[in-house]
Amino acid sequence: MNPTTNQSTSTSKTTGTTPHKPTGKRSSQPTTPDNPKIIGVTEVVLRDAHQSLLATRMALEDMVEACENIDKAGFWSVECWGGATFDACIRFLNEDPWERLRTFRKLMPNSRLQMLLRGQNLLGYRHYEDMVVDKFVEKSAENGMDVFRVFDALNDPRNLERAMKAVIKTGKHAQGTICYTISPVHTVEGYLKLAGQLLDMGAQSIAIKDMASILNPQPAHDIIRAIKETYGEDTQINVHCHSTTGVTMATLYTAIQAGADVVDTAISSMSLGPGHNPTGSLFHMLEGTGYHADLDMERLGHVREHFAKVRLKYSEFESPTLVESAIFRSQIPGGMLSNMESQLRQQGAADKRAEVMAEVPIVKADAGHPPLVTPTSQIVGTQAVFNVLFGRYKTMTAEFADLVLGYYGRTHGEINPEVVKIAEEQTGKQPIHDRPADHLPPEWDGLVEETKKLDGNDGSDEDVLTYAMFPTVAPQFFTERPRGPINVGKTQAQVDAEEEARLSGDLTPVAPITYNVTMGGRTLAVKVERTSVL
Amino acid sequence: MNPTTNQSTSTSKTTGTTPHKPTGKRSSQPTTPDNPKIIGVTEVVLRDAHQSLLATRMALEDMVEACENIDKAGFWSVECWGGATFDACIRFLNEDPWERLRTFRKLMPNSRLQMLLRGQNLLGYRHYEDMVVDKFVEKSAENGMDVFRVFDALNDPRNLERAMKAVIKTGKHAQGTICYTISPVHTVEGYLKLAGQLLDMGAQSIAIKDMASILNPQPAHDIIRAIKETYGEDTQINVHCHSTTGVTMATLYTAIQAGADVVDTAISSMSLGPGHNPTGSLFHMLEGTGYHADLDMERLGHVREHFAKVRLKYSEFESPTLVESAIFRSQIPGGMLSNMESQLRQQGAADKRAEVMAEVPIVKADAGHPPLVTPTSQIVGTQAVFNVLFGRYKTMTAEFADLVLGYYGRTHGEINPEVVKIAEEQTGKQPIHDRPADHLPPEWDGLVEETKKLDGNDGSDEDVLTYAMFPTVAPQFFTERPRGPINVGKTQAQVDAEEEARLSGDLTPVAPITYNVTMGGRTLAVKVERTSVL
Repeated sequence: MNPTTNQSTSTSKTTGTTPHKPTGKRSSQPTTPDNPKIIGVTEVVLRDAHQSLLATRMALEDMVEACENIDKAGFWSVECWGGATFDACIRFLNEDPWERLRTFRKLMPNSRLQMLLRGQNLLGYRHYEDMVVDKFVEKSAENGMDVFRVFDALNDPRNLERAMKAVIKTGKHAQGTICYTISPVHTVEGYLKLAGQLLDMGAQSIAIKDMASILNPQPAHDIIRAIKETYGEDTQINVHCHSTTGVTMATLYTAIQAGADVVDTAISSMSLGPGHNPTGSLFHMLEGTGYHADLDMERLGHVREHFAKVRLKYSEFESPTLVESAIFRSQIPGGMLSNMESQLRQQGAADKRAEVMAEVPIVKADAGHPPLVTPTSQIVGTQAVFNVLFGRYKTMTAEFADLVLGYYGRTHGEINPEVVKIAEEQTGKQPIHDRPADHLPPEWDGLVEETKKLDGNDGSDEDVLTYAMFPTVAPQFFTERPRGPINVGKTQAQVDAEEEARLSGDLTPVAPITYNVTMGGRTLAVKVERTSVL
Repeated sequence: MNPTTNQSTSTSKTTGTTPHKPTGKRSSQPTTPDNPKIIGVTEVVLRDAHQSLLATRMALEDMVEACENIDKAGFWSVECWGGATFDACIRFLNEDPWERLRTFRKLMPNSRLQMLLRGQNLLGYRHYEDMVVDKFVEKSAENGMDVFRVFDALNDPRNLERAMKAVIKTGKHAQGTICYTISPVHTVEGYLKLAGQLLDMGAQSIAIKDMASILNPQPAHDIIRAIKETYGEDTQINVHCHSTTGVTMATLYTAIQAGADVVDTAISSMSLGPGHNPTGSLFHMLEGTGYHADLDMERLGHVREHFAKVRLKYSEFESPTLVESAIFRSQIPGGMLSNMESQLRQQGAADKRAEVMAEVPIVKADAGHPPLVTPTSQIVGTQAVFNVLFGRYKTMTAEFADLVLGYYGRTHGEINPEVVKIAEEQTGKQPIHDRPADHLPPEWDGLVEETKKLDGNDGSDEDVLTYAMFPTVAPQFFTERPRGPINVGKTQAQVDAEEEARLSGDLTPVAPITYNVTMGGRTLAVKVERTSVL
């Protein structure tokens, strides 16, 4: 039934489930331009690129046309699913995320489909009991997922273990993830140890995830060399960098020379800014070196043209960030920054931005220096806002209290004991030190029962999982689902009219606008709309 | 008088005229994070950045406020003058380019001011007789210029020699330039030979100029190592890359490791796209390596904020290019592409774009593979358009005929003899093989006489040179000059209103628009204007 089922028979530890694409020879062997090591590429346009650039608003129908060319371009994998896509699908697009996955599976039969999984959090914002983890992974694999990039915001291996085991049980590719951050307690040795723990769990590859775009070339080199030299040159390493700071194209180049086997990029028309480095640029950058990204550039040309058009449809969701190297100092990723700014505006305190920026590193240190990525980025960011508005830790969010009390897992650095004390006082909860999910009672059967009561649920395990991930959004989605997907982008006619207007220098708006026109004492509402310039 | 006069007493061959800034120790010595080599940085925001991003339209008054911070940030040099700035000043901004230079000199007393000089073409589009070259360089130095980056589009050393000699005579820094291109006849050995010729002319540094953003990390490494190993590790190498293709941050990183001493960047708020890599990103990228860009990041923060605001004023001139890796194939730089597109539109032949793109490499090869940079980019591009519209070489432009007949100098590759024959037939001119400027009669006295006749000229040699560079534009400029500079950007109030509108999602235009509203047989003009959203 499933076109990739036969792929799961691969026994290779390093090349994963789909045998069509070599991950390259050992990096310890000399490479030459005539006999280059093949560098795998993960194309992220269908997930992280539009998540980072267009607030995850891209409708499936705007991706369908590009899938054949993506499928046949020669990528190591195609990232196409994750927490934010799942969330946006049911919250904004009235689109069933499981149906999106099945569609990708059909449209890209030759590709490894890849997803980002938040370990024990799955695609939600809390820990789930182990049976829910097992079910989610099983259903994702069944619907077509091949590569599971499993991460935990705290890099706590105990939060990754069950999900990794579940992936391995399905025969799919289990990729263990190191979330990269810079702090006084984060060292090459620490990352190396984590890599070893991931390999012990059965990880078929190690991803270095640089969500904040702060992985410089030198530490990338050092971490990769350490892993390869300690655990073997055959250890597959995937590198995921954002481009926000403007340095990470050099990081990818250096990482490849240090032995990285697969790197993540986005098609150029959906690249840069808070997104990723451009796929075509990576291809050309390696020309004449001992490395080669074996991609079909003609097909990628079509993909590029396709998304150049699509991107214009979603211009209202565009992040204005072009490059932001101050992140190295503030450690605040782009998405987190815009969240915080919006929180401050809502409180009428937009002028406090600089204070909050300065508060974030303090809160991060107090919380034991967690990498800032979902959900820790939101938790730390919101607490920093609260500290500035109401006084430091005068009002603690429930999530921040849970974080410092250990309910999200173990942070790499020590948590400020003063702050732990305040959290205990404000919440009445005790700190925990074991695996958070061990405190959870079995919940699958309860979730099944609750889902059954919801109008519009189709009785599938997939719907139970959708409800489990987003219990406040799923009920309305189930009732609205029959109306079909909503495209929140502009129509092509609107885009064309805007483009013509831009070229002609005519700034008359395209969207309908109603003016009140008063003449001779009479006021009339005049609606002006333009759909095309002739 | 001139605050930098005392700087010209420096005798160093490699550190130029201003002793305030070391260019770093020898790259052959091991470098460590504790004892790093200091990498010099040339900030290009005042010249090439706004030339590449905003069609050179930035008014001096929008730069003034940033100059103190730029001056004290620790740059190796500040690029602030060149052909396009000179041209735009008198053509669009009613601004005297010499006065701009003198203002920069006053505002940045601690900095080396740098300009781009087109060898025997100076800042114009034709060859000048030697005395004009001498005069131009002398006056530029007198008005405050410190570093002359001298290049020739054909890399013909004979076109560089006189200008280099003139710079050396003033005691200022003579930087010889290699224009980088990719072709069957361009090799590391060829560039190495050219570097040697430049050093023989007395070049105090060698610039590798990558105007098309096609210099990959590997060839950058190879060329730099070849120069350092052949001519000594003390040979100062400056690297100028655009960021258009998305690969050149890796190029800068690799170039620095290969021994490059100075690299060009632009402040981040005026970076990327067809411009340059961001200054702050370069700084952070080198952290923890054996290299250090010794810049004052706090001052650069202010510069960044300043230009973030200024950039919005010129948004109508913004290039839409974000990243364009196809340049590696087409070899067509961004500026050239937009020129060609506009030519095609004027001819009603916009649909011929792909044909022209395919024709460019053929024309480039026929012309002996010149690097595509002013003026060869325009000459080759226009001929490609003519070939597609009228048949290959059926109509040859006078400039293209001159190019293949040797009137611009010697190309590195052989020129197609068939094409030479056509050029001879169409123009009646004979090919030349000696230095083009040797065919020019003395012209300085004539230029002085002609300038004297122009209304509004102030009798200075500077005005003669302005007239010599742009004889069709200068006369009107001289008469308009007393009215003072024009700022073609938006006002801050317009920018603020647009920004508020963007944030509020309200697309009502800011500029006043008059609608003719007809009702009941009466037509009234209704003017709609919004200056602020409250």
